[in-house]
Amino acid sequence: MNKLNFIRSELDKLAAYTPHPGGKVTTAWDRLDTNESPYDLPKELKEKLAWIYENQLENNRYPDGSHGELKEAIAEYVNESANLNQGINSENISVGNGSDELIRSLLIATCLGGNGSILVANPTFSMYEIIAQTLGIPVVSIQRDETDFSLDLAAAQKAIEQTKNPPIRVVFVVHPNSPTANILKAKEIKWLQNLSQDILVVIDEAYFEFSQTSLVEEREKQPNWVILRTFSKAFRLATHRVGYAIAHSELITALEKIRLPYNLPSFSQTAALFALKHRHLLLPSTTETIQERERIINTLTQNSNLKIWPSAANFIYLRLTTDSIELNQLSAALKTAGTLVRHTGGGIRITVGSPPENTRTIQRIEQILTQLGLTH
Amino acid sequence: MNKLNFIRSELDKLAAYTPHPGGKVTTAWDRLDTNESPYDLPKELKEKLAWIYENQLENNRYPDGSHGELKEAIAEYVNESANLNQGINSENISVGNGSDELIRSLLIATCLGGNGSILVANPTFSMYEIIAQTLGIPVVSIQRDETDFSLDLAAAQKAIEQTKNPPIRVVFVVHPNSPTANILKAKEIKWLQNLSQDILVVIDEAYFEFSQTSLVEEREKQPNWVILRTFSKAFRLATHRVGYAIAHSELITALEKIRLPYNLPSFSQTAALFALKHRHLLLPSTTETIQERERIINTLTQNSNLKIWPSAANFIYLRLTTDSIELNQLSAALKTAGTLVRHTGGGIRITVGSPPENTRTIQRIEQILTQLGLTH
Repeated sequence: MNKLNFIRSELDKLAAYTPHPGGKVTTAWDRLDTNESPYDLPKELKEKLAWIYENQLENNRYPDGSHGELKEAIAEYVNESANLNQGINSENISVGNGSDELIRSLLIATCLGGNGSILVANPTFSMYEIIAQTLGIPVVSIQRDETDFSLDLAAAQKAIEQTKNPPIRVVFVVHPNSPTANILKAKEIKWLQNLSQDILVVIDEAYFEFSQTSLVEEREKQPNWVILRTFSKAFRLATHRVGYAIAHSELITALEKIRLPYNLPSFSQTAALFALKHRHLLLPSTTETIQERERIINTLTQNSNLKIWPSAANFIYLRLTTDSIELNQLSAALKTAGTLVRHTGGGIRITVGSPPENTRTIQRIEQILTQLGLTH
Repeated sequence: MNKLNFIRSELDKLAAYTPHPGGKVTTAWDRLDTNESPYDLPKELKEKLAWIYENQLENNRYPDGSHGELKEAIAEYVNESANLNQGINSENISVGNGSDELIRSLLIATCLGGNGSILVANPTFSMYEIIAQTLGIPVVSIQRDETDFSLDLAAAQKAIEQTKNPPIRVVFVVHPNSPTANILKAKEIKWLQNLSQDILVVIDEAYFEFSQTSLVEEREKQPNWVILRTFSKAFRLATHRVGYAIAHSELITALEKIRLPYNLPSFSQTAALFALKHRHLLLPSTTETIQERERIINTLTQNSNLKIWPSAANFIYLRLTTDSIELNQLSAALKTAGTLVRHTGGGIRITVGSPPENTRTIQRIEQILTQLGLTH
C-alpha cells in the first residue's frame, strides 16, 4: 500500500477509538457499558418533541450558531443546582457536540503547538489522552491510590514541577471519576486550588446529577478552573450530543473562537432546552438509580471473590480478589449471558440500569463466578 | 481584566466566526445569505421522520459511532452520481458534523505542529482559513483572475515552490467556488493533477447537485485528492449538520482516528439516510433552482450598473460597475427591504430562493439602485 506522505507520521501509532469493540450493539443486550440512563424520555415528552420537530423546525436552515437560548437555560440550571444567586450567566457557558468537543477545544486553546502538556491520573476517562494524542500534545500520566482511587498527589506535584518543554498546562480530573466512581476529596481539591494560575484545571462533572456534589461554587474563585457537564447521563439525551463548559468569560471567549460555528444541530439544541424545561420529570429517576446502585453494591459485596468500591455515580467499579480467573473471562461471560460491561483500568465498570437489568447483573455475576469454580 | 495565561496568545488576534453578523435571523426576512435550499423537506417526509424519532430512536443511548449504514448509502449515491460502478465503498467515506468538522480533521491529519501550510485562493469559502488559524497553521493566500475567478496558477505555482518551513501541504479549492460560483476549468484541474503526491488537494463539492460536475471519477486516479460533499444544500438538511469526505482509504483511516467517536447525533444520521433514500423526491427541485438562477442573472444583467458572473451553483455573485455607491450600501438597503445577502470578497453573493423570493430580490435591487440615483 502506498503511504500517503502528507499524513502526519505521529498518527500511525494511534488507533481509532471504538465505542463498542465487539461490534454493533442492539437491544438484545443489557447495555451497561457506557453509563447511559436506562430510560428514554417519557412518552409524552417524546411526542411533544416529535411535534416540535414536525411543526417548528426547518430542516433546510442552518442551526442557531449562537446557542443563545440554550446557554441562558443552562446558566439558570447551573445556578439552581449550586444554589448560586445568578453567579453564572451566558458568558460563562460554551456548548459543545458532547463534552468531547469541549475537551478538544480546551486542548486547542491551551496546549497546541508545543505550548503545553497535560496531566491525567489513571484510570480515568480515556478521551483526554486520546484527543491530546491526535493533536500531538504530550500526556503525562500518574497513578491513583489503589485503596480509594484518590490522586497520587506527590506524583502529581512532582510531574508539575519536573515536566518541561512543554510544561504541564492542563490538569484533568473527573468528579466523580470514571471508571472508579470516587469524588474528589478535600485534600485533592486543596491541591487543585493551590496550582499555579497558569495551569488550567478541567473538572469533568459528567455525573454531577448522581453525585450531587459540585465545584461550581468554588470555580467562582478560580479563574483557571473549567467545569464540564453533559446532557448524556441524567438528562437521558446521549443520542443528541450536548455537553457544556462553565468557565471564566475569557476562557469561554477562546472556546467560542475555536468552536465550529454550527457545531450543534437544531434538534439537539431543542432537545436539550426541552429536557431542561422538564427536568422535574427527568431528574427524579436519579433517586432510583442511586438506590439500585446501593442494592448492587450491598449484594455483590457479600461475594468474597469481588472487591467493590463505593460509588457516587451511576455505575459501579469492581475487581476480583482472586488470581484464579481473569477479569476478561468475567466480562466475556457477562457478554455471553447478555450483559455488556466495560473492562477498563484493571477493573470492570458496570452501569446501573433498570431494576430488572440490575437483578440480572447480580445473578449473572454470581452464576459466572460459581461456574468458574469460585465459591463465596 | 486578568489575562488567563494558559490561553495560547495566537488566539488573541482571532475573532469568533459570526454566522449572521446582524443578529438572530427570523422568517421575517428572505434568508438568501447562507446558500440554503429554500425548501424544507416535503410534509409527508417530515411526518415520517417525526414518526421514526418518536418510535424508533432512543434519546438515552449514544449514537452509532461507526456510521456504517450511512456510509454505505453515501457510497452508493456517490457511485450513482458519478456513474462509477462500485468505485467507492464505505472505506472511502468519512462522515462529519458538517464539512467543517472534516476540514478541521484534514488539517489536523496533515499540517498540525509545523508539518504544513495551506494554500487558498481568495475569494473563497472562509472556513478553511479560519479553522487553520485556530490550529496555528500558516495560510498562504493567492488571488483569482478577476474576469472569471479562475486560480492565478502562476501565483499558485510560485507559492508552492517558495513556501518553506513549513511547506504547503494542503491546497483548498471549491468546485464550484463560493462566493464566485465558477467551476474549475481544464487548466486548473490539470495543474492540480500535476501537484506533488505529497500535497493533499481538497476539492469541496458542496454545490455538486447544482453544478452536476464532479471530480469523483478523477479522484480514483489521485490518491492525494479528497472530495467534500454535504447534505446542507440540495438535500435540504442544513439543520442536521452532515457532511462527508470521499478519499483514499488510508486518508479515511487517519480521519477516523481524529474524529470524535460520537460526532453525529442519531437523528442527524437518520435524516441523512432518509434523505438519500428519498432523493428522487428532493433533488428534482435543483432544476427549478437552476432555472430561477438563470432568470435572476438574465434580468439583472440588463442593468448596466451591475456586473454579474455566470453561476454553476445555487447562488449568484455580483459587483457594481460604478464607484458612485458602495456595495455595503446595497447590502444594507437589501436588508432593510427584507432580503439578507452576503457581502464578501468584494462582491455580493445572493442565494437563489423560491420564485417569489427571487422576484423580490430582482425588484428590490432595481428599486434600491434607482433610489440611490443610478439609472440603467
